[in-house]
Amino acid sequence: MQLDSITIVGVGLLGGSIGLAVRSRQLARRVVGVGRDPERLAVAREYGAIDGHTTSLAEGVRDAQLVIFCTPVDRIAGQVIEASTHCTPETILTDVGSTKSNIVTAVQGRLPRSVYFVGSHPMAGSEKTGVEHARAELFIDRTTIITPTLTSPQYAVSTLESFWSALGSQVVRMSPQEHDRAVAVTSHVPHALASALAANLPADLYPLTGMGFRDTTRIAAGDAELWTAIFQANRAAVLTGLRRFTDYLHQLTELIEHDQGPELKKFLASAKKVRDDLGN
Amino acid sequence: MQLDSITIVGVGLLGGSIGLAVRSRQLARRVVGVGRDPERLAVAREYGAIDGHTTSLAEGVRDAQLVIFCTPVDRIAGQVIEASTHCTPETILTDVGSTKSNIVTAVQGRLPRSVYFVGSHPMAGSEKTGVEHARAELFIDRTTIITPTLTSPQYAVSTLESFWSALGSQVVRMSPQEHDRAVAVTSHVPHALASALAANLPADLYPLTGMGFRDTTRIAAGDAELWTAIFQANRAAVLTGLRRFTDYLHQLTELIEHDQGPELKKFLASAKKVRDDLGN
Repeated sequence: MQLDSITIVGVGLLGGSIGLAVRSRQLARRVVGVGRDPERLAVAREYGAIDGHTTSLAEGVRDAQLVIFCTPVDRIAGQVIEASTHCTPETILTDVGSTKSNIVTAVQGRLPRSVYFVGSHPMAGSEKTGVEHARAELFIDRTTIITPTLTSPQYAVSTLESFWSALGSQVVRMSPQEHDRAVAVTSHVPHALASALAANLPADLYPLTGMGFRDTTRIAAGDAELWTAIFQANRAAVLTGLRRFTDYLHQLTELIEHDQGPELKKFLASAKKVRDDLGN
Repeated sequence: MQLDSITIVGVGLLGGSIGLAVRSRQLARRVVGVGRDPERLAVAREYGAIDGHTTSLAEGVRDAQLVIFCTPVDRIAGQVIEASTHCTPETILTDVGSTKSNIVTAVQGRLPRSVYFVGSHPMAGSEKTGVEHARAELFIDRTTIITPTLTSPQYAVSTLESFWSALGSQVVRMSPQEHDRAVAVTSHVPHALASALAANLPADLYPLTGMGFRDTTRIAAGDAELWTAIFQANRAAVLTGLRRFTDYLHQLTELIEHDQGPELKKFLASAKKVRDDLGN
């Protein structure tokens, strides 16, 4: 695929990585970055993530065939609605947010007739932020979930599929609700555990942490504001996931408490099997 | 320091790494490996972790000045007691187990007068097992806790300190009980969380796991038998740690449930601060 112009709103780690990948694979003739801070946009341009930039959303999306919103999940819907009135007909809008129902629902029925929003969520990223950590390879061999609805036109869905595939992703279609339930389990609950573990580490134990503690808590270094918005946007599914996890942990605690060696070993062996199957 | 002969009982990831480090740094003229399986010992020798080997504990420890037990935590005390009767006077025995009270208590008063056991716990390791993953650099910049008691002779304690320092570790002294409470928090509870998370991942969600899930659950790939023994050996401190963690998680769950944005953000920011301070 080659598009004439792609616009990235929010050129941080994810937006910057998309820009680098699009430019290195020549998927568009031009990549425009939109952001609030001209200096940060200039940095993104220096890093080669974008060809040009503007702080005006209206101006930035005017010539785009594809606009990708890489901003916090609580701001995406509003920006999509605002941007849509400035787009040319047939423009496809998408995002990279970690929650989908809140965004898809808020956007539904609010866009001009010939402009389409279909949600995306590339399962790629890092606890790091900023275009300085962006990498063109970020999406290679990662799963990207797209969440079309009954009203999404086929050409928008297939363009998006081609786009993420061209970036190296395996593309999976799910409903926004299915997506939110799934990532609550695979991403949001693990983040909550990592944060609860890190937040409560006494300072005198810092030197006694090995790689295990560091691996388990790595994602707790993620941006606090971003993750507050994610937990709020996916509250119901996150709460269900956290309650289920609390039950699992209670089961494991009981096995230890009642010294049930064989059952404990079976539990740990089943965990090992899953983790071995996942690979690195 | 240079010793004449060091014996390693159990030449897997940790024992093998000690052997590689001792040999590359010439800390002993000879490194002897003791194990149950002659074929595995031959592999350890091929990897350069040991100079010679035997399946006889009695024979293996006879000429050693330092014997290091790198076997599962539920077997160390018995092996230390058995080996001690075959050691020459002034021999120092230590281990690398993740629990200390159970071992130190079981050994206390059971050794010949002139043979000394002082527990060690290098905070290094991996979810991987076997001498194939051993590395001479494993202990560099890691903390190693040693747990002398009131009856430990000074020369044994300082020899052990010099030994772990020579392998690149920062050495910290703690009582066995302090050690167990600390590692319950920094190592055993994180392992329990990782295992509970991995064990309950539905197979259809495997493709939807990103680096966050993989990092958070990495240690769940550890050996199930080994970890069953660790949880059993440190049961009281692990249970206290798990109950405290359950409370922390409950607090976080409540912040999400009651949509307390500013408090939620504060919680996540404090977790981020700790994790940032820990470094990579």
